[in-house]
Amino acid sequence: MAGSTFGTIFRITTWGESHGDGIGVVIDGCPAGIPLSEETVQEYLDRRRPGQTRYSTPRRESDRVAIQSGVFEGRTTGTPISMTVRNETQRSSDYSEIAGFYRPGHADFTFDAKYGFRDYRGGGRSSGRETIGRVAAGAVACAMLRELGIEAFAYTASIGPITSDPAASLRENRTKSPLYMLDLTASARAEDYLLETMQQQDSAGGIIECVVSGMPAGIGEPVFDKLDACLAKAVLSIGAVKGFEIGSGFGAASLRGSENNDAFLGKENGRAVKQTNHAGGILGGISDGSDILLRAAVKPTPSIARQQQTIGRDGSPMTVNIRGRHDPVIVPRAVVVVEAMTALTLADALLVGMSSRIDGVRSFYQRQQTP
Amino acid sequence: MAGSTFGTIFRITTWGESHGDGIGVVIDGCPAGIPLSEETVQEYLDRRRPGQTRYSTPRRESDRVAIQSGVFEGRTTGTPISMTVRNETQRSSDYSEIAGFYRPGHADFTFDAKYGFRDYRGGGRSSGRETIGRVAAGAVACAMLRELGIEAFAYTASIGPITSDPAASLRENRTKSPLYMLDLTASARAEDYLLETMQQQDSAGGIIECVVSGMPAGIGEPVFDKLDACLAKAVLSIGAVKGFEIGSGFGAASLRGSENNDAFLGKENGRAVKQTNHAGGILGGISDGSDILLRAAVKPTPSIARQQQTIGRDGSPMTVNIRGRHDPVIVPRAVVVVEAMTALTLADALLVGMSSRIDGVRSFYQRQQTP
Amino acid sequence: MAGSTFGTIFRITTWGESHGDGIGVVIDGCPAGIPLSEETVQEYLDRRRPGQTRYSTPRRESDRVAIQSGVFEGRTTGTPISMTVRNETQRSSDYSEIAGFYRPGHADFTFDAKYGFRDYRGGGRSSGRETIGRVAAGAVACAMLRELGIEAFAYTASIGPITSDPAASLRENRTKSPLYMLDLTASARAEDYLLETMQQQDSAGGIIECVVSGMPAGIGEPVFDKLDACLAKAVLSIGAVKGFEIGSGFGAASLRGSENNDAFLGKENGRAVKQTNHAGGILGGISDGSDILLRAAVKPTPSIARQQQTIGRDGSPMTVNIRGRHDPVIVPRAVVVVEAMTALTLADALLVGMSSRIDGVRSFYQRQQTP
Amino acid sequence: MAGSTFGTIFRITTWGESHGDGIGVVIDGCPAGIPLSEETVQEYLDRRRPGQTRYSTPRRESDRVAIQSGVFEGRTTGTPISMTVRNETQRSSDYSEIAGFYRPGHADFTFDAKYGFRDYRGGGRSSGRETIGRVAAGAVACAMLRELGIEAFAYTASIGPITSDPAASLRENRTKSPLYMLDLTASARAEDYLLETMQQQDSAGGIIECVVSGMPAGIGEPVFDKLDACLAKAVLSIGAVKGFEIGSGFGAASLRGSENNDAFLGKENGRAVKQTNHAGGILGGISDGSDILLRAAVKPTPSIARQQQTIGRDGSPMTVNIRGRHDPVIVPRAVVVVEAMTALTLADALLVGMSSRIDGVRSFYQRQQTP
Repeated sequence: MAGSTFGTIFRITTWGESHGDGIGVVIDGCPAGIPLSEETVQEYLDRRRPGQTRYSTPRRESDRVAIQSGVFEGRTTGTPISMTVRNETQRSSDYSEIAGFYRPGHADFTFDAKYGFRDYRGGGRSSGRETIGRVAAGAVACAMLRELGIEAFAYTASIGPITSDPAASLRENRTKSPLYMLDLTASARAEDYLLETMQQQDSAGGIIECVVSGMPAGIGEPVFDKLDACLAKAVLSIGAVKGFEIGSGFGAASLRGSENNDAFLGKENGRAVKQTNHAGGILGGISDGSDILLRAAVKPTPSIARQQQTIGRDGSPMTVNIRGRHDPVIVPRAVVVVEAMTALTLADALLVGMSSRIDGVRSFYQRQQTP
Repeated sequence: MAGSTFGTIFRITTWGESHGDGIGVVIDGCPAGIPLSEETVQEYLDRRRPGQTRYSTPRRESDRVAIQSGVFEGRTTGTPISMTVRNETQRSSDYSEIAGFYRPGHADFTFDAKYGFRDYRGGGRSSGRETIGRVAAGAVACAMLRELGIEAFAYTASIGPITSDPAASLRENRTKSPLYMLDLTASARAEDYLLETMQQQDSAGGIIECVVSGMPAGIGEPVFDKLDACLAKAVLSIGAVKGFEIGSGFGAASLRGSENNDAFLGKENGRAVKQTNHAGGILGGISDGSDILLRAAVKPTPSIARQQQTIGRDGSPMTVNIRGRHDPVIVPRAVVVVEAMTALTLADALLVGMSSRIDGVRSFYQRQQTP
Repeated sequence: MAGSTFGTIFRITTWGESHGDGIGVVIDGCPAGIPLSEETVQEYLDRRRPGQTRYSTPRRESDRVAIQSGVFEGRTTGTPISMTVRNETQRSSDYSEIAGFYRPGHADFTFDAKYGFRDYRGGGRSSGRETIGRVAAGAVACAMLRELGIEAFAYTASIGPITSDPAASLRENRTKSPLYMLDLTASARAEDYLLETMQQQDSAGGIIECVVSGMPAGIGEPVFDKLDACLAKAVLSIGAVKGFEIGSGFGAASLRGSENNDAFLGKENGRAVKQTNHAGGILGGISDGSDILLRAAVKPTPSIARQQQTIGRDGSPMTVNIRGRHDPVIVPRAVVVVEAMTALTLADALLVGMSSRIDGVRSFYQRQQTP
Repeated sequence: MAGSTFGTIFRITTWGESHGDGIGVVIDGCPAGIPLSEETVQEYLDRRRPGQTRYSTPRRESDRVAIQSGVFEGRTTGTPISMTVRNETQRSSDYSEIAGFYRPGHADFTFDAKYGFRDYRGGGRSSGRETIGRVAAGAVACAMLRELGIEAFAYTASIGPITSDPAASLRENRTKSPLYMLDLTASARAEDYLLETMQQQDSAGGIIECVVSGMPAGIGEPVFDKLDACLAKAVLSIGAVKGFEIGSGFGAASLRGSENNDAFLGKENGRAVKQTNHAGGILGGISDGSDILLRAAVKPTPSIARQQQTIGRDGSPMTVNIRGRHDPVIVPRAVVVVEAMTALTLADALLVGMSSRIDGVRSFYQRQQTP
């Protein structure tokens, strides 16, 4: 219960530090019979891999995944799927200097406060490399959702103060923008903003959006495990995320009921057809069958080369410059992490929700008795 | 795992529908030896009780709590604490008409999609009365935190478009404002806004903030159970909440690293002393000992008397006017709910975190051996 | 996580002490649509009610259950089912004397060691009345299993040294024997044994067996949550149980492989047809579709009127005679408790197992999309 | 929730099949600061390694463990500890023939019933190799318990019908007996019995006992998570275990209360001093500070070379002889597995129990505030 496990039925456990042997994840509870290969998973990992644009750390890692269990003859077996990515460029020397002080905006101070000491090499467990396990597991969750026609699609909505215009945003632009933006004009301006930021030895944040299509209605639990509450936890559990919105989010707070309510127009394949989607596809914690819409606020990378005020392990004040190979912005690389956490949450909610009616239980029972 | 349980060690389970016998909660895992009485709990419930101002439903409920177990001679025994509030004004007839259609912005549609049918009286389990169990349990969590000098303090930051000025906000104003705002000028303007909204048979939303003081550093888990992620889930699990921020929240997304990083100045009683608190008291998912700052966006009450477009259970279009005794704004009554969910999250994280170091385990073991 | 909760999907939480307000249970995760009434539950509670034969405590309790939530128009709604039984004969004075010392064989000492103090009235939370919540919840689990044609049937196999002859055992005898034995000759001898034991101010134990028919194959999880492991925990969690066997149990330890292996003869409705059932219906932790057979060893009631050696709260030696209205044997009243715990375990395992194959998930998903 | 995870705070997740890449385990929730090396873990794995006596399979595996995370500078860091043992002799061809039929006494049938297909190579996930993860994790749990002076010590009590004489049993004999028995005369007779069994192409079972010394009083939870209930589940979750006893176990069922009650004589270091220990160190689910005594019944190895009756995947009858390198008895190799599962259960119960009193919570809180 030290919190390296996520999910109830579709449940993942991650392990690994930035400068240890590697990073890994074990998935327990993935249904049997889903086609799965290392290539499927690799595709997702490649989207978070560093060194692909000048806006990410030049640290080079191939981040090749190995599936070690739970897949037989190309399909999941229902038993735990263990996946590992080995660490390659473990230049710990880069980091030995940070053993003695606390980097502002990082977890150095709080790890020491909690555990009494820490693996200081590259942030150890609190490094961004920790997300590798999430993405690998998320790829499997996506493979499961794909079997059902459900898709999570995330992208960069803004970088620093530069925001995409929804009217100019096209899904197919995602791969054309080095920042994973859907509005290419905004993307170009965001690139300029980043270059300027980098020149100033500074860093930027941004906002990531995720849209889920194909969700059936009736998924999610009505009280503490509301689907949006679970998504909020999933997304906030990503390192640098500081805010979460579902549907109209903070905007809803200043609307009136007559503006914010989504009128029902009809019903199609068990899904609600609504005039608007301020709710973001979830009512009372349960999916209504519309697209799920969520947003995550990502803070600027805390590692900056500029001089900063901080303290040593003994509490004495000092100034530091964080050297090393850091991302000036992590938003583009975090896009696939948001997608992964969203997919993991939905896969789990779907499996948990299977038992909500006795007729569903009965039909499962009958299938078990079919020769 | 139908999600009526919250927490790992300090764990609560709520039950009850709007128009059933009553609403209740069972707390399992509350440490033994905490002074507790029904009066302590009642104080919190009174803060969410309806009918106290003209901005809440005139439905009158005394909402008296009874503690049925787990307290002996004025102290918690370590065994489950069961608390019940009986429902009094169960005028189901108010609601019989809503059995046949789906109220926009409510969970009627999604409950039917999930369970095949629903207790349609007053929203059943998805009614705002469900929060009674949270508040009663939250009062116990607050009693535990009080033993440690930790306090969660929530208030209304904005109503619709009317926002408090932090410079004019004073803690002692909370009880002076019928809306639980700390800025009395903003509160008066918000009252005007609400009266106008009510005249238009409409409803309003708002933003609630919560500040936690007295937290030690080192609480929270570093990966999926980050303290801010757990708070996000806790807060989003409250009925009408659509957004969550920790520290500078969405604002952080447009700042630069040099602006958003909080410089460390020193260390005091194990806590970080920082120049600013953009992090909101949590770094890498673990408390740093500064105040924890969070914000919740609450949507406008979906029940409005205005005519709305919707569908019947069979999917056919119709127009409806939601009659009955509804809150034009639930924000003021939700303030104590946010406080409760925050306290429950922190109490649990504190207890989970007790085992993070072997020296702490050893000292527990030794205490067990002391006559 | 103080362990008053049992189950993962079909999850119950019990509360209440012997001499508090009452005893209760909340079930979360019961599928919607199961017919349920207080009468159904009462029938099970009546089987554990005291005062029905001279072999149980003369303490009279009507033990009437009230269902407070989760049932609407005669069917479960999928939301939490809260049930309460009020305590009636709370003659605490019977027990005030035991506040100062530790009864041998009871949990008085260990409660003080754990919590620092205890509700000493009648054993408080460790009283046999705690099983009321289990039985009420078990009745609901049985109602769910009945929908699927699954039945758990428990009975007394032995009292002290008197053991039923399987050849003379008939199911219909259970209600004819005041001890719930299936062999009426053994039952009569056991009655004699008990009368003699009571004359000696002593108490007796015994063995309870439970047979589950109608289980489909394929239920249970293959590693830590093996179906027999879950049953073992369920049964050992009942107050006085000291041993557990599945199938041939301890007997298997002295058999040879060729004797203990069950030959497969065929397959019927997805179930294995086997020559023998040493396995007790479970192979590798997963049901094979044969009857599940389990046994529980129950220790003699620790409360006896004979003089015993013990210590006071301060550790000083003393002798005591436990007065009060105690059962000379709890085995007959525990029969329904074993049945309840078995049913709860199976109901949960069935719901957990629904997601083990992607084709099952797909068919659930499709049902959600059917108008 | 597919049950590859064990424990609440000290929580392990295992993965791996007999003939896949390897077998592994991730421990989450191990306190920081415990000295740990691969050698410590290897020592435990070596005790379950095959090929060391003629009573175990001649299959040779070095079973070298690698610790991949969670240990820094020789101490646990509080973050997940991932350990892997690679499979070496993966002669799948040995097993290809078993793809088409169901081995009696094995999980082949039930895996197919549950998942629709299975990794048939060597039993896949249901192979005895699955226990490698348990033993590696158990070694870490033992390292934690050692810090507190707690030790779990298991041994073979009987092989087939040959039982150790407690009077002739000495702890130091465990390493002298190839069967891990404490009575060397019984051990010699058991060897004879095994040789005869092997000549008959048959297999044997036996009984394992485990004694835990050094436990403080007050550990375990009083209702569903009774310490003995948790131990029962832990032990029954080991592949071939069919029965469990705590203290006098099934023997208690035929005793009288006056015989079975353990008189209290005094109190020492918070522990009960008792005349006898029929309770096996646990009263009401909570440790009393005496030694914990448990027993596990292990069935005879189901893989035997003798001809057996079974069915093919299509249900058609056939006869088979299970060839390959199988253990004629697994009891000696399972001794360390019982020890591991016991240690894991106790480590978890200790950490869960730390929060049972507010004074313990307060002292933790104060430590966090100490510079």
